[in-house]
Amino acid sequence: MASDAEIRAMRRAIEVAARGLPTALPNPVVGCVLLDEAGTVVAEGWHERAGGPHAEVAALNAAGGRARGTTAVVTLEPCDHTGRTGPCSEALIAAGVSRVVIAVPDPTDTAGGGAQRLREAGIEVEIGVLEDEAVQGLEPGEGNEVWLTAVRNRRPFVTWKFAATLDGRVAAQDGTSQWITSVEARGDVHRLRAQVDTMLVGVGTVLADDPMLTVRDADGNPAGRQPLRVVADTHGRTPKDARIRGDDAPTWIATGAEVGLTADGTLDLPALMTQLYARDRRHVLLEGGPRFAGAMVEAGLVDRVIAYLAPALLGAGPNALLDAGITTITDVWRLDLLDVRRVGGDVRVLARPRARH
Amino acid sequence: MASDAEIRAMRRAIEVAARGLPTALPNPVVGCVLLDEAGTVVAEGWHERAGGPHAEVAALNAAGGRARGTTAVVTLEPCDHTGRTGPCSEALIAAGVSRVVIAVPDPTDTAGGGAQRLREAGIEVEIGVLEDEAVQGLEPGEGNEVWLTAVRNRRPFVTWKFAATLDGRVAAQDGTSQWITSVEARGDVHRLRAQVDTMLVGVGTVLADDPMLTVRDADGNPAGRQPLRVVADTHGRTPKDARIRGDDAPTWIATGAEVGLTADGTLDLPALMTQLYARDRRHVLLEGGPRFAGAMVEAGLVDRVIAYLAPALLGAGPNALLDAGITTITDVWRLDLLDVRRVGGDVRVLARPRARH
Ligand SMILES: NC(=O)c1ccc[n+]([C@@H]2O[C@H](COP(=O)([O-])OP(=O)(O)OC[C@H]3O[C@@H](n4cnc5c(N)ncnc54)[C@H](OP(=O)(O)O)[C@@H]3O)[C@@H](O)[C@H]2O)c1
Ligand SMILES: NC(=O)c1ccc[n+]([C@@H]2O[C@H](COP(=O)([O-])OP(=O)(O)OC[C@H]3O[C@@H](n4cnc5c(N)ncnc54)[C@H](OP(=O)(O)O)[C@@H]3O)[C@@H](O)[C@H]2O)c1
Ligand SMILES: [Zn+2]
Ligand SMILES: [Zn+2]
Repeated sequence: MASDAEIRAMRRAIEVAARGLPTALPNPVVGCVLLDEAGTVVAEGWHERAGGPHAEVAALNAAGGRARGTTAVVTLEPCDHTGRTGPCSEALIAAGVSRVVIAVPDPTDTAGGGAQRLREAGIEVEIGVLEDEAVQGLEPGEGNEVWLTAVRNRRPFVTWKFAATLDGRVAAQDGTSQWITSVEARGDVHRLRAQVDTMLVGVGTVLADDPMLTVRDADGNPAGRQPLRVVADTHGRTPKDARIRGDDAPTWIATGAEVGLTADGTLDLPALMTQLYARDRRHVLLEGGPRFAGAMVEAGLVDRVIAYLAPALLGAGPNALLDAGITTITDVWRLDLLDVRRVGGDVRVLARPRARH
Repeated sequence: MASDAEIRAMRRAIEVAARGLPTALPNPVVGCVLLDEAGTVVAEGWHERAGGPHAEVAALNAAGGRARGTTAVVTLEPCDHTGRTGPCSEALIAAGVSRVVIAVPDPTDTAGGGAQRLREAGIEVEIGVLEDEAVQGLEPGEGNEVWLTAVRNRRPFVTWKFAATLDGRVAAQDGTSQWITSVEARGDVHRLRAQVDTMLVGVGTVLADDPMLTVRDADGNPAGRQPLRVVADTHGRTPKDARIRGDDAPTWIATGAEVGLTADGTLDLPALMTQLYARDRRHVLLEGGPRFAGAMVEAGLVDRVIAYLAPALLGAGPNALLDAGITTITDVWRLDLLDVRRVGGDVRVLARPRARH
């Protein structure tokens, strides 16, 4: 049984883990808190970026000699493999930690096994403390769900974002759509973009809107690390001078020739996902449009939905989603609400698809 | 200046006024609290139904002789006309009330003038205390806005309700729609129906769904006072055996022959509203469908929108709103969010249209 102090420490570890959200990909976010025998915090650490110190090592470094005899409270099972850094299991053993409390077991073949190694060294190990919170995050969407799902499925986690009116329109009848949602909602989208490593759109959106798909600051300038921009473009229709080909961020025009085609001649979406995973991509933000999003939904490749709904009505214009393969109400694609909140004058709905029946 | 005790009493008066919500129509909801000189509550009253005692009289009756010298705190200016009951202004004067604190002035020609009559009788009168709260209600939608708007516009207040998926579909491609929203959301709709005096649909919805449009309890049985059911049916296409013609509630098939036509041959919607007002109707719940709702929106006849949004996606099927006369984004019909909350597993959005630009 974890003590109250350990549970508090785990909550704190989950909190500091989330600091790694924009930068840790393709690695998980991890937080670690070291407690002395009285339950007082000795040090904490978190994983900032691939190649940088793991959370456990960051905490051990901060603690120095005071690490001996502590309990390490860590959001993910310590790794047991030598990558760009040594295994955390060994570092914890070497530092003389006496007990390790873990939220989530490591699902990967390469890194897993840390708990067993620790136990073999005579260290007490407890797994599953605040596991749900570590997966979901203290704030919705800020946990390790994205990374865990990606490594389990061996494809990136896909968050589909759309901005629509209350009646589900993403543009007016004449195609104009600037702006449906508030400046605050658009700012929220840029924060969202900063937390993924890939942005994906159908070529129809490129042809219609010529978007840049960069992470921009409040002044509209590109800011920080830029995700890979991917266009699903079976026949290579992306114009030579499309803004998405600009220098501000890397771009991949994913054509049928490169990715592969399904029997009916469309871009092979599972193959696209597998290739993105092979390129170390773990979190794709799908930004539409409606037809391509429909194909992704139908293929079962959407893991989370973020809808920005403006309190506005159009009564005409393109719908948020098209052709998802659903014809009757019993096949409706149900989601569970994770979060509903106001962002500026708009409503933001965060939801997770249920398993299809 | 109203005292703290008077402001507290006004909040209480607004709260008890809302008890009249399902029954007071076509009258306003009104609450009244009598305070003694120490600011202690002597009695309270509210208006339950047309023909029954007004809130002031209910409070005076409850107070009896203790009414003398009190301050009457009342959510709406006391009436000054003799209808089915005598004027409240006179009752307050006769009871020896020494001061009257009012939230909202009475906008009607017939009932207005109460404040002046009270002042002429030497009673101190203060108007405008917690006016916004009295109009909007302490809970969103539970104030006097409906009645005030109706009497000012001389047409019923119109609340448009729809239930849709996150992508704005009110039915699947094959027309099936049972059920998009949760049982809790559907129960909320029955509570909503119980608070209006009229329900309105386009004939398309009658032909498609053959709805009953009654207020039903949890067991599905008709419960309580039933609003008038109105079908907008230019050419009298409502089938003879349509369920909406059933005996459970009164029905009006509003045809072009009876209501009048516009130049382009459609049912004259402003005339329909005027005729409903003449029939003492003050609150219309518009339940669609999309095409008729579009015509009501385009005619500027929607005063409030309640959207029940299920966390679900369809990608095909009829949209919540059609043909509202909007073709480009700068003409989008903007609303202000009044309330966003979860109802069962769904999201309920309450919004008020902004003045059109
Ligand atoms: N408000 C928002 O959140 C938002 C976001 C994005 C877009 N939009 C709006 O959406 C509209 C554009 O949408 P759209 O539907 O025309 O274009 P789209 O969904 O962006 O792209 C559709 C295209 O994707 C390509 N595609 C590649 N692989 C596919 C597959 N496996 N299955 C299906 N399609 C595949 C197809 O073209 P190929 O066959 O040539 O590959 C298809 O025509 C614009 O009006 C834009 O403003 C709104
Ligand atoms: N989920 C929900 O909240 C909800 C609610 C209701 C309906 N629905 C769905 O909506 C669908 C039916 O919608 P609908 O669009 O076909 O029918 P509708 O909007 O209910 O009715 C349209 C008809 O109203 C009549 N109308 C009368 N006066 C009008 C005016 N001034 N302007 C325009 N029309 C006027 C017209 O027929 P005439 O010319 O013959 O008079 C018109 O065809 C069904 O699938 C139903 O399931 C969903
Ligand atoms: Zn490690
Ligand atoms: Zn009265």
